[in-house]
Amino acid sequence: MEDHVTPRRVVIIGGGFAGLFAARALRHAPAAVTVVDRRPHHLFQPLLYQCASGILSEGQIAQPLRTVLRRHHNVNCLLAEATDVDPGAKTVRARRPDGGLLELPYDDLIVAVGMRQSYFGHDEFAAHAPGMKTLDDALGIRRRIYQAFEMAETATDPRERRRWLTFALVGGGPTGVELAGQIREIAGHTLDREFRAVDSAEARVLLFEGSEAVLGAFGPRLAERAARTLRDLGVEIHLGTTVTGVDANGLTVKDGNGASTHFPAHTVLWTAGVEAPPVAAALARATGAEQDRAGRIAVEPDLTLPGHPDIRVTGDVMGLDRLPGLAEVAMQTGAYAGRAVRHSIEGRKKRPKPFKYVDLGSAAYICRGRAVVKAGPVHLSGRTGWLAWLLIHLVFLTGFRSRFGALLSWAVVFASGSRRERAFTMPDREPSPDPPAGRKPPATSS
Amino acid sequence: MEDHVTPRRVVIIGGGFAGLFAARALRHAPAAVTVVDRRPHHLFQPLLYQCASGILSEGQIAQPLRTVLRRHHNVNCLLAEATDVDPGAKTVRARRPDGGLLELPYDDLIVAVGMRQSYFGHDEFAAHAPGMKTLDDALGIRRRIYQAFEMAETATDPRERRRWLTFALVGGGPTGVELAGQIREIAGHTLDREFRAVDSAEARVLLFEGSEAVLGAFGPRLAERAARTLRDLGVEIHLGTTVTGVDANGLTVKDGNGASTHFPAHTVLWTAGVEAPPVAAALARATGAEQDRAGRIAVEPDLTLPGHPDIRVTGDVMGLDRLPGLAEVAMQTGAYAGRAVRHSIEGRKKRPKPFKYVDLGSAAYICRGRAVVKAGPVHLSGRTGWLAWLLIHLVFLTGFRSRFGALLSWAVVFASGSRRERAFTMPDREPSPDPPAGRKPPATSS
Repeated sequence: MEDHVTPRRVVIIGGGFAGLFAARALRHAPAAVTVVDRRPHHLFQPLLYQCASGILSEGQIAQPLRTVLRRHHNVNCLLAEATDVDPGAKTVRARRPDGGLLELPYDDLIVAVGMRQSYFGHDEFAAHAPGMKTLDDALGIRRRIYQAFEMAETATDPRERRRWLTFALVGGGPTGVELAGQIREIAGHTLDREFRAVDSAEARVLLFEGSEAVLGAFGPRLAERAARTLRDLGVEIHLGTTVTGVDANGLTVKDGNGASTHFPAHTVLWTAGVEAPPVAAALARATGAEQDRAGRIAVEPDLTLPGHPDIRVTGDVMGLDRLPGLAEVAMQTGAYAGRAVRHSIEGRKKRPKPFKYVDLGSAAYICRGRAVVKAGPVHLSGRTGWLAWLLIHLVFLTGFRSRFGALLSWAVVFASGSRRERAFTMPDREPSPDPPAGRKPPATSS
Repeated sequence: MEDHVTPRRVVIIGGGFAGLFAARALRHAPAAVTVVDRRPHHLFQPLLYQCASGILSEGQIAQPLRTVLRRHHNVNCLLAEATDVDPGAKTVRARRPDGGLLELPYDDLIVAVGMRQSYFGHDEFAAHAPGMKTLDDALGIRRRIYQAFEMAETATDPRERRRWLTFALVGGGPTGVELAGQIREIAGHTLDREFRAVDSAEARVLLFEGSEAVLGAFGPRLAERAARTLRDLGVEIHLGTTVTGVDANGLTVKDGNGASTHFPAHTVLWTAGVEAPPVAAALARATGAEQDRAGRIAVEPDLTLPGHPDIRVTGDVMGLDRLPGLAEVAMQTGAYAGRAVRHSIEGRKKRPKPFKYVDLGSAAYICRGRAVVKAGPVHLSGRTGWLAWLLIHLVFLTGFRSRFGALLSWAVVFASGSRRERAFTMPDREPSPDPPAGRKPPATSS
């Protein structure tokens, strides 16, 4: 029999898809579960670009973790940033937003810290080319996009006006493609006839990608279709390019032949790479676990750390099988880890089967009526892809009370092109250069 | 005949209710209208507290000015902050967000700059007691309210926990009363059963008012009813008090007998007073117009400046007849000024009738099912007042595409107490003390 007086203490670091699904899998376990996250909300990351582009509100893509988990009576949510793990004392150290420190003892630890934007060693780019990982990032990008058109409208120098009407996106993965499509749609439809001095439709959108294809992960056929759709939409695609410099006035790009070109642009957005947050390195140091170049942590087939069967790593930061950083992988690894802990608490002797990812496919939205979807042998694009995208996202918003609101917002934007959430905050300071966005201060633990 | 080749140039400073209604009144006039505002959106200010409290999204209470006015083909909107007026050269000087300067020539000028939060000479309070005038303010307050409960949940010291669970509101006008009601409702309903360590319903809400009544403008009977409703809701009302100090840990208050008391509280919100923005003083200096103590500009009965028939002042910053700072006054003065300019352009010789405010009444929301409404001899409170409030706000949201969305959000919050827009942004820094919010840097023109 389990000792129900002192239930097993399970600490989950991170309340993204992996952490949330781990907590849910532990709902009926005799465990005291603590989810610690530096943000108080669970973010529906795949739709973050729609918050940035003014289709959805923050509340439609982010809900307080404790609201999502309020019927999980054995779960407690804490607002603090995990900074370190002590596998000997079995504690997690975390810092409250006011700097206060917490020590969280655990019997089982589930690491679900996700990944953050990487600038490949050029953190100075962040000041001029924000990434898009958090709600703050999305609202900052919303301001940059819409304010750029406002700045163009009052610009007196034609070159300056062009600079405000040029948007450069670094990274040709789903996020970069989605943002490129959004900006062209905003320019061509949403802002249509709203400006007097500028023709918003003239806005240039440049998409820079290091490899030889956008959406390479979708395979050559869908990648080619996506590129064609983007070009039809007016996006200028630059493949095989490396960004070597970014400042408030634009970016410098090296092509495959080593030739450098400067592109003037006041708005540069960065979606080109990810890296593990500092706590992943702290964990690796403390446990001897290996990290790959981006900081993903190597795990056993059952997601535990080698030599540490009480520590499981899930989601984007988990390095098993080079799985992609998709919500679906996070959900499946999180649920697997949560179940494994529950089985262990319940005293099941049988060793769990190794984790196996069931690929349910992936999707990228390009513009109104156009998306690509890949699910095993099924490859969809164009309008069919878009209908599949719509269906998938409505299903996955389950549990989000905002599903009806999102559907309504989509109906509006798909029917008329107008966006209901264009309002942006605007602190009383100059719009350029902005302070670093989406970049964390160095963790005190590292 | 009018010369249609060079239409009359009308500059409107400010895109609030007064500026918007002035622009609308000029829709069919042969005029080139420019609306200049330091924010790109028109804000439905009376519902700002609902954005702060997580009921409505930014997009539901703020729409881009140029979207609202997109069918007014003679209107141009510019994002810039008016800093100075030269009545001799007939130009308005404005600063773009990047510091660039614009010169806007006018034949007619309509001033609709509104008022900003006043700390009665204690601008240092602003850092710890943000006001609520802009969208940024509202989102900052949303973060402070919800984050306070999160901080209380992880506080280890009981006194510290009490401090996070104590909310002090300075100012017993509609905004203060509305926020007090909202915070008690959030504590008692919205957050019910979501926290483990703290009982959110224990949150204390203190309301400080200098006069001897909350909602004094509604007359003694409604004021008494409102006070009773607030007390039933658990709000502690301190009348006849003056705030003499505010810091990150609380506020010091002097009562009618001169006795000082310190109230520990990590969240202090300021709604106690308003003052004219710097451009009003610049205008007064340039034209010799008089300002009252809060900076409101004295005008002739036709809203023109004495000796300057081409300059009209409207909305909150207009000092005629000590009219209250209500949306309704702004709409009526704005429309009046716009019409007067149109008549002048059309060459009507007849002097316009003096402006006369038609008091359609005012309303203040207290909590679910409780509001006070005063319209001439009609005084409503309780549930009847609330139904009247609902009707009034649905009517006035006309033209806002968000009316349906607002109704839906209200249905959810009135039925279940849950709020759909609780997500808040959270820059990577300590939550207390915050940098000054809602406080403008000194205008370079003054």
